[in-house]
Amino acid sequence: MNGPPPAGEFGLIAALADLFGPPPPEVILGIGDDCAVLDPGGPEYLLLTLDTLVEGVHFHLAWSTLRQVGRKAVAVNVSDIAAMGGQPGYALLSLGWPPDRELSLALEVGAGVAEAARQWHLAVIGGDTIASPPGLTLTVALMGRVPKGELLTRAGAKVGDGVYVTGPLGAAAAGLEALRRGLPLPLEVQEPLLKAHRDPVPQLAAGRLLAEARLAGACIDLSDGVASDLGHICRMSRVGARIRAELVPLPPALARAARTLGLDPLALALFGGEDYQLLFTSAVPEHHLAERFRGAGLPAPCRIGEIIPGAEVLLAGPGGEQVISGRGYDHFRLDREGEVG
Amino acid sequence: MNGPPPAGEFGLIAALADLFGPPPPEVILGIGDDCAVLDPGGPEYLLLTLDTLVEGVHFHLAWSTLRQVGRKAVAVNVSDIAAMGGQPGYALLSLGWPPDRELSLALEVGAGVAEAARQWHLAVIGGDTIASPPGLTLTVALMGRVPKGELLTRAGAKVGDGVYVTGPLGAAAAGLEALRRGLPLPLEVQEPLLKAHRDPVPQLAAGRLLAEARLAGACIDLSDGVASDLGHICRMSRVGARIRAELVPLPPALARAARTLGLDPLALALFGGEDYQLLFTSAVPEHHLAERFRGAGLPAPCRIGEIIPGAEVLLAGPGGEQVISGRGYDHFRLDREGEVG
Repeated sequence: MNGPPPAGEFGLIAALADLFGPPPPEVILGIGDDCAVLDPGGPEYLLLTLDTLVEGVHFHLAWSTLRQVGRKAVAVNVSDIAAMGGQPGYALLSLGWPPDRELSLALEVGAGVAEAARQWHLAVIGGDTIASPPGLTLTVALMGRVPKGELLTRAGAKVGDGVYVTGPLGAAAAGLEALRRGLPLPLEVQEPLLKAHRDPVPQLAAGRLLAEARLAGACIDLSDGVASDLGHICRMSRVGARIRAELVPLPPALARAARTLGLDPLALALFGGEDYQLLFTSAVPEHHLAERFRGAGLPAPCRIGEIIPGAEVLLAGPGGEQVISGRGYDHFRLDREGEVG
Repeated sequence: MNGPPPAGEFGLIAALADLFGPPPPEVILGIGDDCAVLDPGGPEYLLLTLDTLVEGVHFHLAWSTLRQVGRKAVAVNVSDIAAMGGQPGYALLSLGWPPDRELSLALEVGAGVAEAARQWHLAVIGGDTIASPPGLTLTVALMGRVPKGELLTRAGAKVGDGVYVTGPLGAAAAGLEALRRGLPLPLEVQEPLLKAHRDPVPQLAAGRLLAEARLAGACIDLSDGVASDLGHICRMSRVGARIRAELVPLPPALARAARTLGLDPLALALFGGEDYQLLFTSAVPEHHLAERFRGAGLPAPCRIGEIIPGAEVLLAGPGGEQVISGRGYDHFRLDREGEVG
């Protein structure tokens, strides 16, 4: 191999994309968005995505049920389809099960997958079952579709667009932290945070609304945190962004949980990851967006900042502005980032 | 959960298929063939498959290079497409890498994936990279296509069909056994067997020929061994089969290797698995098949038996007939079957 070694997960992905070379012309988007996008002819694009959950990395069976793990493996893929404005259609499941565990328990995982499949209207039509001695692993590959004029990508943000999120941030990260610390929180504070970590809800209806009504410039799902994921939009759209600290929506339980855990709620919201809300940019006025969302039975999205010239994600707070690009969850740096300075 | 626990890998797959329910009507084949088959409209079916390779289960890094593992992860999926008569098109890759290993080495895996992708004319267009502390895991999801009139399935075998394989059997199993025992074989015996295990060659051209020229009744790729895989054809086609021991083609090195290893070469060929040859049934006369294969620049397939009424796979040898259905590699029974009685 030539060249320096890749830096972290995103360096590895870029180096792999180099190895695989440019895709053929019918591939509208290859590596580098939430889904790969194919033009099969006809009025729709095909969307392809896959995600793997590994026991001990993405979940712990002391903290989530097998059924929740099955649900989540589907949900995180549906979230990728939502980020492209699409509808999920068909899933393949690879289930790696430790041979020394009771095989019938694997059906609990399957029941979670089946439940989520019904909920998000997709069919599980194939897959692979394998022995995975060190622990449960689950890969879901998902195919979806989106009408050609409605595709949402990371590349459409324009200077002057507002930056929005479809819901409050930081709950999943706080829930995970509470689990790590042995659940030091009162039940009513803890429950919604744990649920956010264990059983995330992909924002499929919001993605379809943004796509169908052409309300968004760029869109991504929040798997790694605002700082990291908005950084992807900035890179693909060749713009910068400014997040305003006071606008970032926090769930009701977060402030109290963060105080008990000794964490900064804003850091959880911006760098925590796994919120699976959509982050999008829009040139449409905020009140108009709110109307459209409410008209579709969805909560109004929250404006958290704006797209600006440049290449960085800035956080504007009481103490001035700081660059937060690239801070967030990196699968190959298992420590999470700390408090906002 | 109700009902008895699933028995082995195939019991688990059947129980999962029950949980997932019947697929929608545009799904021509769901769980239970080499690929799922979708009708997207138009002249072709879409083929979807995925396979996972786990370090310590499907490969050992003391026995295969990272590049070979990358190649094999693609090859075993291409083999599933070949078994349906299709052409591979687009792949997604999930690469699980232990965070304590040098990240740049993961690019060796990627280089193997890229090499195989070029060889089999498919594009890697997306995926996922994750931390997998216990070891390297690789999942490839592959989409392919086949003209609607040319789909090969496990369900088309008819009584009176010949049973054929596209090449000699048992080399991969013998190679794996040689690696397990510390390579006790002379180099010229060992090398082709090791190559068969490390770097299998999917029979894509043979699958396309069978499909295009409508030469096959049923078809499957030999991943788990003749006894197991022919059993799938029998179950899906509601027929039985008789294999004739003296017709099973063995690679040149196998007899000598089996002697040294103290194994029965026929057992390696019938129960060993990982040959990735195609097993098919055909009503076309043997000499005509041979002509068509040679005309396409391929070795003539070997007739190893015939489809008969019933539901079992029989092995006919000098000592009479025995039932061998279901014997073969089961991912949840890590022991392999022994000698043919």
